[in-house]
Amino acid sequence: MIFRQLFDSESSTYTYLLGDESTRQAVLIDPVIEQVDRDLKLVGELGLTLTHVLDTHVHADHVTASGVLRERTQATVVGSKGGAACANVQVGHGDEVRVGQLVFQVLATPGHTDDSVSYLLGDRVFTGDALLVRGNGRTDFQNGSASQLYDSLTRVLFRLPDETLVYPAHDYHGHSVTSIGEEKRHNPRVAGRSREEFIAIMENLHLPRPRKIDLAVPANRACGHTAPSPQGA
Amino acid sequence: MIFRQLFDSESSTYTYLLGDESTRQAVLIDPVIEQVDRDLKLVGELGLTLTHVLDTHVHADHVTASGVLRERTQATVVGSKGGAACANVQVGHGDEVRVGQLVFQVLATPGHTDDSVSYLLGDRVFTGDALLVRGNGRTDFQNGSASQLYDSLTRVLFRLPDETLVYPAHDYHGHSVTSIGEEKRHNPRVAGRSREEFIAIMENLHLPRPRKIDLAVPANRACGHTAPSPQGA
Repeated sequence: MIFRQLFDSESSTYTYLLGDESTRQAVLIDPVIEQVDRDLKLVGELGLTLTHVLDTHVHADHVTASGVLRERTQATVVGSKGGAACANVQVGHGDEVRVGQLVFQVLATPGHTDDSVSYLLGDRVFTGDALLVRGNGRTDFQNGSASQLYDSLTRVLFRLPDETLVYPAHDYHGHSVTSIGEEKRHNPRVAGRSREEFIAIMENLHLPRPRKIDLAVPANRACGHTAPSPQGA
Repeated sequence: MIFRQLFDSESSTYTYLLGDESTRQAVLIDPVIEQVDRDLKLVGELGLTLTHVLDTHVHADHVTASGVLRERTQATVVGSKGGAACANVQVGHGDEVRVGQLVFQVLATPGHTDDSVSYLLGDRVFTGDALLVRGNGRTDFQNGSASQLYDSLTRVLFRLPDETLVYPAHDYHGHSVTSIGEEKRHNPRVAGRSREEFIAIMENLHLPRPRKIDLAVPANRACGHTAPSPQGA
């Protein structure tokens, strides 16, 4: 398998490129619109064909490249049920996404947003903003729910094998990856915390409103298009 | 093996943590002084003991954490021959560095600086500033030599198997890793270029002087200490 972790420093977003070495089919997870040229150049140089784009949720902090990538490559855009209506395929817990011989299992991990999913591929899980390195996504907009996120973390993600490598959608401290075991032991908001403690922590973060949210959320519901398409997608 | 890629966004430096799962001994490659607390916290959380610190060369753009890490952990500082005199061990081409059961092979890859080495561990090579993703380090100070770097790239690194994963000391475009095969095919300065073409490209970069060079180079010759130690190290 070909695997590349890519970073957008403006939004501190990680994008993942995964390619199946036998069919040369490839997928981008959580691509950022400003990085389309970089990402497609890499896809081409690696001799891959982009067939799928996966978003873990409707992002509030950057605009997805899914729509532009679909236009330029005919890739299938995959989102979650309740997420972007413009996606070609909307997936929910227990569904699978096949990219060549790579089989991603969809895990519903709501709480950061109500449409958040994680994608499990073997011993790697792409958690979006549900689980970050020693952190987790905020829960104060887009139908976020600290209680629901607590369940997603402790009853879904933390039931994966400890060795599972966790690839988040963001990091702000120079970390690139963690593992389920590490987060079960060392995540300061979740490890050893009750649901009530977790909810209290999340309620007391008092984070500023995301700078791009008014642009990004409607754009991302339309696969990154900042004006409605003729189809209203 | 435990493997973590860490990033310092101020200097765009990658630091690598590698741990041997049997002995729990660990090494940091190219650590940055501002990130000592982050890096030691991670070492501890992973249940590792830092026994070695490796620098690929005397850096001009950031200050190494090697001396501080040695003081705080008693780790052995490894540098290259002709590099920092403060290192406990100075290695050259063909030498090995053993960290538990991990065996790093030293490859002399001068040209960015005259003391630049790469560390090969199985199918991964840590190339410092000799080989970057679709790029290479500049050659206009610290006894750099474009001609020498051309040899290091084409006669040393490009003779490794194509599948070898290349982990550089820096990236400025959100890439995290490449492979020898990719760089042989797609590195715009080297792929298909003659020595003369490469030298001409390097001579015409006209890069600004590194902002921190006057601080960083003397500090790094003293393992990150900005004033001489009583021993003059």
